Amino acid sequence: MRGLMQDWPLLCSKVIDHAANEHPLREVVSRSVEGPMHRTNYREVRGRALKIAQLLEREGYGLGDRIATMAWNTWRHLECWYGIMGIGAIYHTLNPRLFPEQLAWIMNDAEDKLVFVDLTFLPLIEALAPKVASLKKVIVLTDAQHMPETKLPNAVAYEEWLKGADGDFAWKEFDENTAAGMCYTSGTTGNPKGVVYSHRSNVLHSMIAQAPDAMNISSSSRMLPIVPLFHANGWGIALTTPMTGATLVMPGPKMDGASVYQLLTEERVTCTAAVPTVWLMLLQHLEAHGGELPDLERVIIGGSACPRRVIEAFQNRYGAQVVHAWGMTEMSPLGTLCAIKPEYAGLTGDDLLAVEETQGFPPFGVEMKVTDDENRTLPRDGKTFGRLKVRGPAVAKAYYKDQGAELFDDERWFDTGDVAHIDQHGYMKITDRAKDVIKSGGEWISSIEIENVAVGHPDVAEAAVIGLSHPKWDERPLLVCVKREGREPTKEDVLGFLNGKIAKWWMPDDVVFVDEIPHTAAGKIRKTALRDEFRDYVLPTA
Amino acid sequence: MRGLMQDWPLLCSKVIDHAANEHPLREVVSRSVEGPMHRTNYREVRGRALKIAQLLEREGYGLGDRIATMAWNTWRHLECWYGIMGIGAIYHTLNPRLFPEQLAWIMNDAEDKLVFVDLTFLPLIEALAPKVASLKKVIVLTDAQHMPETKLPNAVAYEEWLKGADGDFAWKEFDENTAAGMCYTSGTTGNPKGVVYSHRSNVLHSMIAQAPDAMNISSSSRMLPIVPLFHANGWGIALTTPMTGATLVMPGPKMDGASVYQLLTEERVTCTAAVPTVWLMLLQHLEAHGGELPDLERVIIGGSACPRRVIEAFQNRYGAQVVHAWGMTEMSPLGTLCAIKPEYAGLTGDDLLAVEETQGFPPFGVEMKVTDDENRTLPRDGKTFGRLKVRGPAVAKAYYKDQGAELFDDERWFDTGDVAHIDQHGYMKITDRAKDVIKSGGEWISSIEIENVAVGHPDVAEAAVIGLSHPKWDERPLLVCVKREGREPTKEDVLGFLNGKIAKWWMPDDVVFVDEIPHTAAGKIRKTALRDEFRDYVLPTA
Ligand SMILES: Nc1ncnc2c1ncn2[C@@H]1O[C@H](COP(=O)(O)OP(=O)(O)OP(=O)(O)O)[C@@H](O)[C@H]1O
Ligand SMILES: Nc1ncnc2c1ncn2[C@@H]1O[C@H](COP(=O)(O)OP(=O)(O)OP(=O)(O)O)[C@@H](O)[C@H]1O
Ligand SMILES: [Mg+2]
Ligand SMILES: [Mg+2]
Repeated sequence: MRGLMQDWPLLCSKVIDHAANEHPLREVVSRSVEGPMHRTNYREVRGRALKIAQLLEREGYGLGDRIATMAWNTWRHLECWYGIMGIGAIYHTLNPRLFPEQLAWIMNDAEDKLVFVDLTFLPLIEALAPKVASLKKVIVLTDAQHMPETKLPNAVAYEEWLKGADGDFAWKEFDENTAAGMCYTSGTTGNPKGVVYSHRSNVLHSMIAQAPDAMNISSSSRMLPIVPLFHANGWGIALTTPMTGATLVMPGPKMDGASVYQLLTEERVTCTAAVPTVWLMLLQHLEAHGGELPDLERVIIGGSACPRRVIEAFQNRYGAQVVHAWGMTEMSPLGTLCAIKPEYAGLTGDDLLAVEETQGFPPFGVEMKVTDDENRTLPRDGKTFGRLKVRGPAVAKAYYKDQGAELFDDERWFDTGDVAHIDQHGYMKITDRAKDVIKSGGEWISSIEIENVAVGHPDVAEAAVIGLSHPKWDERPLLVCVKREGREPTKEDVLGFLNGKIAKWWMPDDVVFVDEIPHTAAGKIRKTALRDEFRDYVLPTA
Repeated sequence: MRGLMQDWPLLCSKVIDHAANEHPLREVVSRSVEGPMHRTNYREVRGRALKIAQLLEREGYGLGDRIATMAWNTWRHLECWYGIMGIGAIYHTLNPRLFPEQLAWIMNDAEDKLVFVDLTFLPLIEALAPKVASLKKVIVLTDAQHMPETKLPNAVAYEEWLKGADGDFAWKEFDENTAAGMCYTSGTTGNPKGVVYSHRSNVLHSMIAQAPDAMNISSSSRMLPIVPLFHANGWGIALTTPMTGATLVMPGPKMDGASVYQLLTEERVTCTAAVPTVWLMLLQHLEAHGGELPDLERVIIGGSACPRRVIEAFQNRYGAQVVHAWGMTEMSPLGTLCAIKPEYAGLTGDDLLAVEETQGFPPFGVEMKVTDDENRTLPRDGKTFGRLKVRGPAVAKAYYKDQGAELFDDERWFDTGDVAHIDQHGYMKITDRAKDVIKSGGEWISSIEIENVAVGHPDVAEAAVIGLSHPKWDERPLLVCVKREGREPTKEDVLGFLNGKIAKWWMPDDVVFVDEIPHTAAGKIRKTALRDEFRDYVLPTA
C-alpha cells in the first residue's frame, strides 16, 4: 500500500520559488567583480534566473546539457545556477585555479556547451576555448559598459543578453533524480573526478544542512559564503541560504583579510564559511590592524583540518563559535559538523578545544562507519582508526564516466579515502588520507596528527609529513617544515617540541626545512608532489 | 541525464537508526501509565522496536497491514511506531476520546488487524473488539505484573510478548512511497477522514520540522511533546526528535497543570508542544501555586488559535518564546510557524504580539496561497481573506478510500478548508473555517476574529460565533458566551467591549450566555453542534 501524499518532486527550482515567495525582499548582497557593492533580493534573483532559463531554452539548450560557470560568488553566479537548473541543464562549476591543461581536460570530459565567465577569467577562457570543441558560446558576467574586447567569436555581455528575455517562463518539470550540477574533486590525491549531483540530492542536502546542529541557518541569519561556489558544490550554500530565507552576502573576487573583515562588519554577517587559510588571513589582518566581530555568531571551517589556534582565536578573542566541518565533493559536500552534544556541554578550555578539533558528527542523512581493510567495523573508542565510509542520499554512487568504481562496495558504502577514528559519543576525527598514511612495521602512523602538533611550534609556519621507504620498518615519517619569517628553528628544536605530544614510535626519523610546500588549487598540501620531491631522499635511520 | 547520487530511500527506519548510532545514550524519559517515571535511550528503543518488527513478521503481519495503537505518549508507544513501520506495516493511531461508535467505524474503515493498547483504554478496546471483524490480536502495553484480567481471547502483555524475540532482525526495505502511518482528522467539521502518510512524507516532514525557523530542535534540546501521538500524526515529533538526537520527555497519561509543570522543571525541558487548552491549564496552575520555568526556551502552540494572553504570559512572565503554529492532519501536520523574520525583529509590545498571533509562515517544503472562490490568488496585504490552499511533499493528495476528491484541484493544491489572509511579509492568519465563515450581504465575517476579541473580556470564559440566517443580510453573527465563574456580564457589557475593536458591520446581532459550548475530542469548538442547538433561534434584528 502506498501513502496518499502529494507527488512533489524535490527540484531545485522549488528552493528559489520558496525564497521568492516567502522571503521576497530579503537581500542578496555582493561585492561585484567590477568593484562596487551590489544589492538585490530573492524575488529579483528568481526573476532574472527565469530570464536565463527562457533564453537558454530559446537557444536550444535543455535537459542534460552541461553549462559551465567560471565565476566568483556573486548574485549573477547564483542566478546562473538557478537558470541552468530550471530547464534541467547542469551547472558545471570550473575552478579557475586549476592548471589550464587540467581545465581543458575537465571541460572536454564534461562536454561543456556554454560557459558563464567572470571578467577576471576571460583571458583564461580565451585560451581554453579553442581546445574545447563542444563549447558554443561564452557569456561574460558583466554589462555592456564593462564588456572588454575579445577575439572570441561567440561572446556576449550577460546584462545585454538578459535584455532579450521578458522572464515569462515556467520552470521545467522532470524527475527529481535528474542531474542538476557537476563538480570535479580538488585533485589533491590524483586527477579530479567528476561528481554529478541530482535535484533530489541538492534539495535533501540543503534540508540536512539547515538543521540547528549543522549549519543552523534561519531567516534571521546573515550568511557569508567565502568558500567559492566552484569548491565542492559551494558547500551547498547557494541552495541552503535561499531555502531558509537567510540574507546572503557574497565576497565576489576579494577574499583577503581586509575585504573579508569589511564585509563581516559592514554587512553584520552572523554566519560564514571557508577553509582555514581564509581564516588565517583574516586573523592576521585583525592582529595587525585591530578590529572586533560583534555580529559574528558562527564560523564554519572545513576543507582541511582546522588548526587549534584558529578555533581559540575566534572563540576566546572574538566571541564567535567555530563549527569544524568535514566533507567532500562526493558528499555534496557535508559529512560531519562539530556541534556540541550534551555529553560534552560541560567542557571548557583545552578539553573543549580537543573536541572542537574533531570534525564532529553526521546530521541525519549521512551514515558513517570506520572499518579495517577487511571491511570489519571498528569500535568507536576514539583511537582505533581505519577507513572512513559513508552512505546517504547526497553521497555519490559513482563518478562521471564511471571512474573509480572500486570505491563503492556492495552495500553502497562509499570509501572516502580518509582515515579516521570515532569516539564513544560519535565524534569523528580525520587522522589522514588513506594514500598518505604511513605504514610502519604493519602499524599506521597519522601524518595529519604529527603535522597538527608541529605547526603548534612557534617558529614553524607550515608542516607536512610523508612516509619514506625504510629497509626495516617499510615506511618511516619525514617531517617537512617551512620556517616562520625571521625564525630559525633547528631539527632538534622541532623534535624536542614533538616529544611527549605524540607516540614515541611516531617520531619523525628526520626533519627538513624547505622554502615552500606545494599546494593544490584549493590550498591543500599536495603530498603527491612532495613525495616526488623527496623520492630519492635517504632517511638517516635507513 | 540522471544524477550519480546514492539511492537512499527515505525510510522511517533510517531515523531511529540514526538516533541509535549517533545519539545512542540520549535519554527517552516517560511518565509510565503504571505510575513511575521510566528512563531509556535511543539505542534501547531501537533494540526493542526491532523485536516488535521481528515478532510481527513472525506472526504474519507485513507490508500494508494496518496496526492500531491506542496509547499515551510513552517509550512503548514510540517503540511500536518504529516496530510497525520497520516491516512496512502502517501505524494507525486511534484517538480514545472519540465516541465509541466513531472509533468502531474508523477501525473498520481502516481494517485494523492488531491493536497496541494502554491499560487506560483496555475497557474501551474490550467494548470495541466484537465490532471490528478484522481485529485479530490485542497487545496490552504493560508487563505481566500489571496485566489485568480480560475476557479478550487474544490479549497479551507487551513485555511478555517481547520476550519471544531476540531482536536479531533487519528492517525491511521497500519503496519510500510505501504507506507508513495513518491518522483520521479530528472530526470538527464532519466525520473524520483517513490520511495516509508515506515513509517519504514522514521523513521529509521531519527534515522540514527540525529547521531553526520551524521547531528548531538539536541534540541539546529536551523536547516534551504533550500533544498526543494520536493527534494529527503527533505533530511529527516521534520522528523529528530522534532525527535530531534531542532528549525526548513524554507525559504518559498526565497532562494536567501540576504534572506538566513537574516534567518541565524536573526534566529541564527546553522545548514543548501542545494545544492552547493544555497551556491554559498550566498557566492556571502556575498562577495558583507559583513556580518558574527557568529551562524552558520555546513553547510550540497550535491546533487552534492561541489566545494573546497565553503568548503574553509565557513571554513576559516566564521568559519562554511562543511559536504559534498552524497545521492539519492532512499536512503531517506542520503548515506554518511563527518565527520572527528580520522585517519584524524590531517590534515590541502589542505590535509584536499582533505578529505572534498570526500563524506565521511556511518553511521550505510547504507552499501556500489564498484564493477567492474562483481560484484567483488574492493579494498578500494582511487583510484580504479567502481560501487557504497548500502544496508539498507532506500534504495529502487524497483521503483513504477516496473521500473528498473535490478538495484537490488540477494543480494539486489542497484546499485546507481554512480561511486566511497573508501579509506583505508572508505572515498568514487564520480568520475562519470555510464552513464557519458568516456571509453577510455578500461579504465574509470572520467568526474567529470576533471570538478572539470576545474572550479578551475579563468576565468571558469562552466564546463562539455562528452565523444565523437573516432575511435581509442572508446571515448575521450570533455570539455565544460562557461566563467566568462568579461573574455576571451582560449582553451590553460584551457588545460595548467589542465596540471599536472590530468592524461595525461585524458586530454580533445578539449575545447569548450558555453553561457550556460543545467541544470535539481534540478540545475544539464544535460549531456544527452549536448551529444545531441554535437552529430555531431568531435574531432580534430578523
Ligand atoms: N575538516 C577537515 N579536516 C581534515 N580534512 C578535511 C576536512 N574537510 C575536508 N577534508 C579533506 O578534504 C577532502 C575533500 O576535498 P575535495 O572533495 O575538495 O577534494 P580532494 O579530496 O582534496 O581531492 P581529490 O579527491 O581529487 O584527491 C576530504 O576527503 C578530506 O580529506
Ligand atoms: N494555530 C491555529 N490557529 C487556528 N486554527 C488552527 C491552528 N492550528 C490548527 N487549526 C485548525 O485545526 C485544523 C486542523 O485540525 P485537525 O486536522 O486536527 O482536524 P479538524 O480540521 O479539526 O477536523 P476535521 O477536518 O475532521 O473537521 C486546521 O484546518 C485549522 O482549522
Ligand atoms: Mg577526495
Ligand atoms: Mg480539517
